Amino acid sequence: MEEAPQPVGEGGLLGEELREIWPFLDLEERLEGFRVLAPGEAEDVFFGLSTREQCELLLALPPRERQLWMRQLAPDDAADAVQQADEEQREGMLRLLDEPTRREVSALLAYAEDEAGGLMSPRYVRLRVEMSVDEAISYLRRAARERVETIYYIYVLDGEQRLLGVVSFRELFAAPPDKTVRDVMRTEVVSVPEDMDQEEVANVIAQNDLMAVPVLDAEGRIKGIVTVDDIVDVVREEATEDIQKIGGTQALDAPYLEVGVLEMVRKRAVWLTVLFVGQLLTATAIAYYESEIARAVVLALFIPLVISSGGNSGSQASTLVIRAMAMEEVRLRDWWLVLRRELAAGLLLGLLLGLIGLLRVVLWPGRRTLFGEHFFLLGVTVAVSLVWIVLWGAVAGAMLPFVLRRLGFDPASASAPFVSTLVDVTGLVIYFSVATLLLTGTLL
Amino acid sequence: MEEAPQPVGEGGLLGEELREIWPFLDLEERLEGFRVLAPGEAEDVFFGLSTREQCELLLALPPRERQLWMRQLAPDDAADAVQQADEEQREGMLRLLDEPTRREVSALLAYAEDEAGGLMSPRYVRLRVEMSVDEAISYLRRAARERVETIYYIYVLDGEQRLLGVVSFRELFAAPPDKTVRDVMRTEVVSVPEDMDQEEVANVIAQNDLMAVPVLDAEGRIKGIVTVDDIVDVVREEATEDIQKIGGTQALDAPYLEVGVLEMVRKRAVWLTVLFVGQLLTATAIAYYESEIARAVVLALFIPLVISSGGNSGSQASTLVIRAMAMEEVRLRDWWLVLRRELAAGLLLGLLLGLIGLLRVVLWPGRRTLFGEHFFLLGVTVAVSLVWIVLWGAVAGAMLPFVLRRLGFDPASASAPFVSTLVDVTGLVIYFSVATLLLTGTLL
Repeated sequence: MEEAPQPVGEGGLLGEELREIWPFLDLEERLEGFRVLAPGEAEDVFFGLSTREQCELLLALPPRERQLWMRQLAPDDAADAVQQADEEQREGMLRLLDEPTRREVSALLAYAEDEAGGLMSPRYVRLRVEMSVDEAISYLRRAARERVETIYYIYVLDGEQRLLGVVSFRELFAAPPDKTVRDVMRTEVVSVPEDMDQEEVANVIAQNDLMAVPVLDAEGRIKGIVTVDDIVDVVREEATEDIQKIGGTQALDAPYLEVGVLEMVRKRAVWLTVLFVGQLLTATAIAYYESEIARAVVLALFIPLVISSGGNSGSQASTLVIRAMAMEEVRLRDWWLVLRRELAAGLLLGLLLGLIGLLRVVLWPGRRTLFGEHFFLLGVTVAVSLVWIVLWGAVAGAMLPFVLRRLGFDPASASAPFVSTLVDVTGLVIYFSVATLLLTGTLL
Repeated sequence: MEEAPQPVGEGGLLGEELREIWPFLDLEERLEGFRVLAPGEAEDVFFGLSTREQCELLLALPPRERQLWMRQLAPDDAADAVQQADEEQREGMLRLLDEPTRREVSALLAYAEDEAGGLMSPRYVRLRVEMSVDEAISYLRRAARERVETIYYIYVLDGEQRLLGVVSFRELFAAPPDKTVRDVMRTEVVSVPEDMDQEEVANVIAQNDLMAVPVLDAEGRIKGIVTVDDIVDVVREEATEDIQKIGGTQALDAPYLEVGVLEMVRKRAVWLTVLFVGQLLTATAIAYYESEIARAVVLALFIPLVISSGGNSGSQASTLVIRAMAMEEVRLRDWWLVLRRELAAGLLLGLLLGLIGLLRVVLWPGRRTLFGEHFFLLGVTVAVSLVWIVLWGAVAGAMLPFVLRRLGFDPASASAPFVSTLVDVTGLVIYFSVATLLLTGTLL
């Protein structure tokens, strides 16, 4: 946790300039630019880098400088940087740290990067219940000069490191000096378990408006704290991942311009191929109705219109539900509430589009030449299909995230393209079934 | 800014339970539940509510209680709550506040809710340069008992309220007592202008790892501070808006289950109708090629496959670019870099899908019966079309957010369904053009 707005460094421009152009430099140019910076500026640039960039830069620096910079990282940041390196380089990076920090960092490395334990800093300030407020403040004055994460949230522990309470520095500071820590601490504390997913930790912090949250193990012992500034990054990262998945890509895990083209193609190709294979079913479906199309070619005209309306309606529903789930506004057991809403919304939207579709067909200039004398019946076919397909799109799009989550997958995988593909195939069946029903004996 | 993890209240369960079921209660039930809570629990529930829910609850409470709760809100939160109320109720809500707070809140109401001025708290702590560290700490001890937003970031001002520097409480606390504030403050401070958009404020805070940022007017006078805990909410809100837009809906501005069905239908109907009208062009395009389809009905089989592949490729590209823009990884002037990458990625992805498409057609069981003797040429037509359409989808999807931003629109409006629709129409033209070129004389 940074303590205050960060100065941009003496004569800051050069450092700021380097940060501006950083994404467009290759590693060698970055190294070159970084090493000519004044010390203050170099620090600002270094701490402003993403974990991944820090790691790349560290590994490119000469050993002595690498050690210097490595030792400036807080244990949680050092652990993140080490985690970015290849397996065989990690040991070497850890050896650069001093002994106590190395132990802290190794302990953090045992946690997955995206759970509470992987986010936390082990350098929180702890007090005992029997201390007086005055003693506590003197103790914090010494702690303020050391490399603790923050002195503003102070955790009160018993002999077994179990969390008894919490007190903010401000509360301590405003309290009468002869009271004890026990008198001023709060005993009901929101905490998170060490293996909680980082997205959930973010929800806990956001919903309770916290500045920091303690991380406890199964025995109630405090292992570290997660501060809100780290949560800002988590929230941004998680939203980016969700957005990329909704767009039908695997999460890039790095800024767009920094991912190699081939790597990006690989991450997009997987889903694109899956969707393509799914779309092949549309050809199969149409092949099944080939004789109907041969008799009434006009039916082909409305294929993209009809099925894409279902896809669009499905994209809307699935993205709304995916986001609501991520924000914990909707839980698994709310599926029935969502289904009811989407049945209503889908029906209304279907009726709206159906009406527009009907009007468009029956008012089409040259309708008799193009569609023949049964143009009105054709319009009704399009309209009725639209009602069903839009309704089906909304329901399928809204339920798919529930199904995925129930099966243990990420609901965000119910991407807009995935839902569209699903609805396209069924949409064709609906369209041709309605056509067969309404047009046999006239157009068919 | 909350000072520490929030206790859940004495015997916490009831308050927590109420929060659990809150979204599913109507206003009357909420009121009833809220009024039976113990004071500590009621506070936790109240401060945990969204601004919108706070406002609804406030307006539903009897006048005396309304005043009580209204006065517990910090000025920035009070301003947000007032902003949620109808025009005619605002004056009444303001009158509940004491005179100095009312003036602060009225000043905040002059700012748009989504700019720096609308996010900031005017209750920051200020010091003069000539104070000694010891004097400063005594002063802060008094401030800690008052209702200032935070005592941890302290701003040093001159006589005209212009910002001279900043010092963290921790730095002050660790400094020798006889130094002056001037000696320990930092003079290069990251700040934001009062009309900066909240998304940009979030980027400034995240990129500089700040805990708070001062808001300055055009003359460099400090108007307030924005703290990182408010930014967590901003980042979540903005991501939600972007995700909903990418899914092809207007932003809901409220949790999914709390928006009325009709309101939700309205927000979805606008885009769905626009997209439908756009899709009507696909019918026009196909009508133009009706005689080709009449001659070779098999062409109709691959319409959804071919055009949706372009749409999927476009959705991927547009969501990647929209997110990269929101994260400030890609700026307007980087369009050329993005175009080059998408040309390469689109071509590779197109070749991949083209190859799969070719194989599928030429290996289709019963290909001779279904496609006739020219099935190989038909496969080549599908493959060549796919290469061009997927390439075009990637390029169009990636460039559309740039065009929208250049024209002053929100790039996130380049939703997956919007890009699909755009690419569907052009995709049909590409498909039938390739078919005419390759199949005239054989199938056509």
